[in-house]
Amino acid sequence: MGARVLKYGMVGGGAGSFIGAVHRRAIALDGQATLVAGALSSSRERAMESARELGLERAYGTWEEMLKGESSRTGAERLDFVVVVTPNHAHYAPVKAFLEAGFHVVCDKPLVHTPEEADALVKAAKARGVVLAVTYNYSGYPMVRRAAELVASGALGTVRKAFVEYHQGWLATAIETSGQKQASWRADPKLAGAGSLGDIGTHAENLLTMVTGKRIESLCADVTTFVPGRRVDDDVAVLIRMNDGAKAVLTCSQVCVGCENSLSIRVHGTEGSLAWRQENPNVLEFTPRDGTLRMITRGGPEAGVGAKSTRLPPGHPEGFHEAFANVYLGVFAKIRGEAGVFPTGEDGARGVRFIHACLESAKRDGAWVKVK
Amino acid sequence: MGARVLKYGMVGGGAGSFIGAVHRRAIALDGQATLVAGALSSSRERAMESARELGLERAYGTWEEMLKGESSRTGAERLDFVVVVTPNHAHYAPVKAFLEAGFHVVCDKPLVHTPEEADALVKAAKARGVVLAVTYNYSGYPMVRRAAELVASGALGTVRKAFVEYHQGWLATAIETSGQKQASWRADPKLAGAGSLGDIGTHAENLLTMVTGKRIESLCADVTTFVPGRRVDDDVAVLIRMNDGAKAVLTCSQVCVGCENSLSIRVHGTEGSLAWRQENPNVLEFTPRDGTLRMITRGGPEAGVGAKSTRLPPGHPEGFHEAFANVYLGVFAKIRGEAGVFPTGEDGARGVRFIHACLESAKRDGAWVKVK
Amino acid sequence: MGARVLKYGMVGGGAGSFIGAVHRRAIALDGQATLVAGALSSSRERAMESARELGLERAYGTWEEMLKGESSRTGAERLDFVVVVTPNHAHYAPVKAFLEAGFHVVCDKPLVHTPEEADALVKAAKARGVVLAVTYNYSGYPMVRRAAELVASGALGTVRKAFVEYHQGWLATAIETSGQKQASWRADPKLAGAGSLGDIGTHAENLLTMVTGKRIESLCADVTTFVPGRRVDDDVAVLIRMNDGAKAVLTCSQVCVGCENSLSIRVHGTEGSLAWRQENPNVLEFTPRDGTLRMITRGGPEAGVGAKSTRLPPGHPEGFHEAFANVYLGVFAKIRGEAGVFPTGEDGARGVRFIHACLESAKRDGAWVKVK
Amino acid sequence: MGARVLKYGMVGGGAGSFIGAVHRRAIALDGQATLVAGALSSSRERAMESARELGLERAYGTWEEMLKGESSRTGAERLDFVVVVTPNHAHYAPVKAFLEAGFHVVCDKPLVHTPEEADALVKAAKARGVVLAVTYNYSGYPMVRRAAELVASGALGTVRKAFVEYHQGWLATAIETSGQKQASWRADPKLAGAGSLGDIGTHAENLLTMVTGKRIESLCADVTTFVPGRRVDDDVAVLIRMNDGAKAVLTCSQVCVGCENSLSIRVHGTEGSLAWRQENPNVLEFTPRDGTLRMITRGGPEAGVGAKSTRLPPGHPEGFHEAFANVYLGVFAKIRGEAGVFPTGEDGARGVRFIHACLESAKRDGAWVKVK
Repeated sequence: MGARVLKYGMVGGGAGSFIGAVHRRAIALDGQATLVAGALSSSRERAMESARELGLERAYGTWEEMLKGESSRTGAERLDFVVVVTPNHAHYAPVKAFLEAGFHVVCDKPLVHTPEEADALVKAAKARGVVLAVTYNYSGYPMVRRAAELVASGALGTVRKAFVEYHQGWLATAIETSGQKQASWRADPKLAGAGSLGDIGTHAENLLTMVTGKRIESLCADVTTFVPGRRVDDDVAVLIRMNDGAKAVLTCSQVCVGCENSLSIRVHGTEGSLAWRQENPNVLEFTPRDGTLRMITRGGPEAGVGAKSTRLPPGHPEGFHEAFANVYLGVFAKIRGEAGVFPTGEDGARGVRFIHACLESAKRDGAWVKVK
Repeated sequence: MGARVLKYGMVGGGAGSFIGAVHRRAIALDGQATLVAGALSSSRERAMESARELGLERAYGTWEEMLKGESSRTGAERLDFVVVVTPNHAHYAPVKAFLEAGFHVVCDKPLVHTPEEADALVKAAKARGVVLAVTYNYSGYPMVRRAAELVASGALGTVRKAFVEYHQGWLATAIETSGQKQASWRADPKLAGAGSLGDIGTHAENLLTMVTGKRIESLCADVTTFVPGRRVDDDVAVLIRMNDGAKAVLTCSQVCVGCENSLSIRVHGTEGSLAWRQENPNVLEFTPRDGTLRMITRGGPEAGVGAKSTRLPPGHPEGFHEAFANVYLGVFAKIRGEAGVFPTGEDGARGVRFIHACLESAKRDGAWVKVK
Repeated sequence: MGARVLKYGMVGGGAGSFIGAVHRRAIALDGQATLVAGALSSSRERAMESARELGLERAYGTWEEMLKGESSRTGAERLDFVVVVTPNHAHYAPVKAFLEAGFHVVCDKPLVHTPEEADALVKAAKARGVVLAVTYNYSGYPMVRRAAELVASGALGTVRKAFVEYHQGWLATAIETSGQKQASWRADPKLAGAGSLGDIGTHAENLLTMVTGKRIESLCADVTTFVPGRRVDDDVAVLIRMNDGAKAVLTCSQVCVGCENSLSIRVHGTEGSLAWRQENPNVLEFTPRDGTLRMITRGGPEAGVGAKSTRLPPGHPEGFHEAFANVYLGVFAKIRGEAGVFPTGEDGARGVRFIHACLESAKRDGAWVKVK
Repeated sequence: MGARVLKYGMVGGGAGSFIGAVHRRAIALDGQATLVAGALSSSRERAMESARELGLERAYGTWEEMLKGESSRTGAERLDFVVVVTPNHAHYAPVKAFLEAGFHVVCDKPLVHTPEEADALVKAAKARGVVLAVTYNYSGYPMVRRAAELVASGALGTVRKAFVEYHQGWLATAIETSGQKQASWRADPKLAGAGSLGDIGTHAENLLTMVTGKRIESLCADVTTFVPGRRVDDDVAVLIRMNDGAKAVLTCSQVCVGCENSLSIRVHGTEGSLAWRQENPNVLEFTPRDGTLRMITRGGPEAGVGAKSTRLPPGHPEGFHEAFANVYLGVFAKIRGEAGVFPTGEDGARGVRFIHACLESAKRDGAWVKVK
């Protein structure tokens, strides 16, 4: 008998949301979970309309109503997990409430605005013994997982230097003033918390720490707002010192005209190096010291652990949706009581601390600051 | 209210099938259809077991039983369409039967073994006014659609020359003798009809004719079986003459060690050229005569019609699943009575004629033959 | 004491010649030879003027005068070799005369127009015991030499299939009618002998046979003139059968809009494959069967014999000039009585036979023809 | 009549020197200058032996002797210029002496160890009205010149952000302790002045300022020595603030296993962006805002000023030697009294100041420092 199809509810992600649809498609891909409930917008009207469009029976006008309505359901009716995909400032309250009500929760990144909030969520999940996952979706790419495995296996020797970049160009002009929905909330300090740092810098930070297995100990950040009138950062460069003497350079920018979604990581160790680029995600470059660059592919003989996160034969490209879905497969496994790999609340808390350290360095004009 | 979720049944595609799972994931991605019935294997036992694993309620031991069982259902219970993903030799009978019973049918490629069978299916579909689609899935890539649009728009001027390749390496040894399931039936002339020609050559032929908008008028094929003991072709090179003086070179091979799923097309016209490679599908190269190569991307400003087949922002890679799903979206639209683009039975019949012409040329040691 | 600087004379290659200047720069690069004499144009006036511009003391109005004048010189004054870079139709006479006069000769490709002429030159060189080299310059690339070495070493197992392409786009319109010097003589059947076949097809043929170590046994060619009014071929596709069952597809075209100088070769054997592209010449792709693609570089640990044809450290790009110069280094070594690798008169004769076989196939509408 | 062939002498660059041979080949390529004198090593014996190997008649045991011997020559015998390619610490004295003696001088980079020395050389050249050139050879690439032209033309709008990298891996282990000649002097603080900063960081600095046309105003550098026992830096990351609000990230490293000679620059402005990579130097990527990435090639229609520094048709790769030769062509033109583009003593002085600022920041644990 096949595995039971899980039931989930969604907070946020209604009409016009980009990320809500991504979560739904990623979940649908493998047929392991089905959406049954939702409070899909902060506007009651849009929430109900969005639910109708999705054919949702258990539609709510607010997440508080959803919490109340769903908490009383039991057995086969009970939600297995809740997905929170609201703008950043509206993560904390519903995530905390659903965790405390005993629901597994998957929350978009960055987790919250302050380290204190982050710690509170981690604590809440632990208290109830439920999953708190943060969708650092790039961690789901098979070749990213393989990269981390290569580093962990010692194939690179001691990690010395890493370069991680996340460059986009879509915010090179003040499109947030034109009513573009995706840009508008991202450029509002109250809703977003930070600009490029929160939106994409945390992805870069997660990629860096996940692949290298290192902690950021201190950093020095040059935080810039290039677009006149913008109220959040749109370009950041960070020098990073990690444990065991490793160093890194992390840059994120949303004013890099010519870049679409250019996330990449390169790691150089004493015995080898690797490079991965999100826009060509099925390939991982690996070069042993004094050896020849090898193009490891998702479906090839050196895919390693990446092969476990793969659905298609070699040369049949997988992409963003599949990586996202891999994060969910990890969550589903955990919910079913099996081993599951996915970014946790702790990872999310680390991202929040990274943002704060960068903003602290910026306040002090690029001084070095310790990261807790 | 959202669009009604369609219901479908599947013939073939049970446990161990690669392509059946691909169809199911592609269909699931957009949440527009749900699998409710199936005769998933030619072995009754495996068919029933596979249905259980998928949680299918309406499980059948044979497609004939499924035809009988499903034909009697009406209203909301009625199947909207049937997907046939059996090995090639077992396409004809169920496709014909379901078409004649008034079901829309989606069949994997190559459609059938003979031009006569192909014509019969096209006729059957027309007679009942139902859809017959053939999953030339590569036609669903946004940048392939954009390529065809560029040619049709005249951006390349008069097409002179095209190069289309489909090179794989996984059959470079006689793995069909080792029990590898995917290889075994493909290398059996009775089940597969042809070797690389049917398995991948028809994809190349479809890509060529779809993108250039030209017909193959005559061809000369060097058909080879490189692997000792193999009973079907595993490498083919074809010189092609098309209407209006255009020419092409089509090569397909499954013994190209080093190639994973290397399908590509390059078209050169009097005013410009284009190139697309399946393993990096989000990019289309376009060069105007006396101009500069432009890297058109799926999400960029020159995506044209490709933008209509896109789910994600620029730089968020889409791949094989999404292209496959795009073919289904065309079918779904057609079923719903809207405009829908997808490869039809006629396209499938053309592929069958291409295979036959190549084999005819091979029999005559590479002579030129006309293609009807 | 350093090696003696050789002296050479040049026939053709005066003002406005592209290839003459290339030869001179390639020879100058390593400081092993110096130009001292020349009959640089078929026009006496331009010949003398070109010699003045180059500061040549021993200037001649015709190659016959140069032959006469230089034959009488001896000792340190004596020319070590003569370079013939006239248009194709004017190769035969001076090459033959200088060979018979006991000079080593380096001739541009294609060697001559007919197999009979080619054989006569080979015979003449042998009779006098002098070098006859043909500047198939692409054979001088370190990674091409490494490719041939890999095949010869058995790293690819038995060669099954090769793809060789030489695609340019600069003749996509009838620029020969506009007075463009490079295009004008190339499009004149009397001067050029053939069109794309002679100009670039022979380079492709040489690359194919050099890298694979195989002979062409028979072929079938589709020879096309796409540009209205043009009197020579501008696009050719050839199916090739080689010894030991190997097969190849060779295409050359000068109407491939979007291509600059796109020469490439891919070879697939039973145990591995390789790929090399002239426009990125410092890299050779090698993939063992069931292994991972390795990017062998000119300066890297797997450069093999290629390292002997390299002047710069890894990552310092070498290009066309250096490859050309490598051919000359082979000639110089031979002249000095050392071992030297370079394309010989026999290689040139094979190229002439290849052209003839293609034109013969074309006359018979693409029939298969044997190659002697 | 052709231009007079210039005469030059060389200080340093004897047997075993990498860069001396590069200078000689680059100069030879165009046949505009010929080596006639040299003091090729700091060891008298090796100097004389090296001169013999090169067939040099005017051989000297020390640069002081060469200065004396050559200063007395006049007319056609007189040296037109002197090339100084000694290890860094031995640049200052001979450059100054030859300048003061009225010779044009070409000096390798980094020019000298201190800003004071640099200023003195610039002053000396000005005093005698002679050329002082510094071989920032990467500035000679046609596509680098085109990049600078694009920025200067306003095609990128206002420059906001630049990323410049120079990553090598050959010093990832302590090969300087093994007697490797190239590594040995580079790792000696007295001879080299700095490590990666001087050897490659200055190239990166020159590329950054040349292409962007901006000045470095302040910087913050994390300077690291990763290899145990090494006495100079081998990895540096620098955050840079330039005039007009532009910012940059410059990284140089010689412990980046997997990198050969990976120099690259990316510039993002308000209206467009560009990217260039030294290992694939014939291509320049340009993307207008809201436009499509264009692959500008050295020989293509958008080559702009780059076309003036090109010797070969499109698709015929040029590389490191040609770029180096282009710097010399600029020097030759200037010597002949024509317009000539090349990096000057002032550029060299700026590089020295950059090194000093980075080392100053390093001393203060990565603090921001002003650059004069």
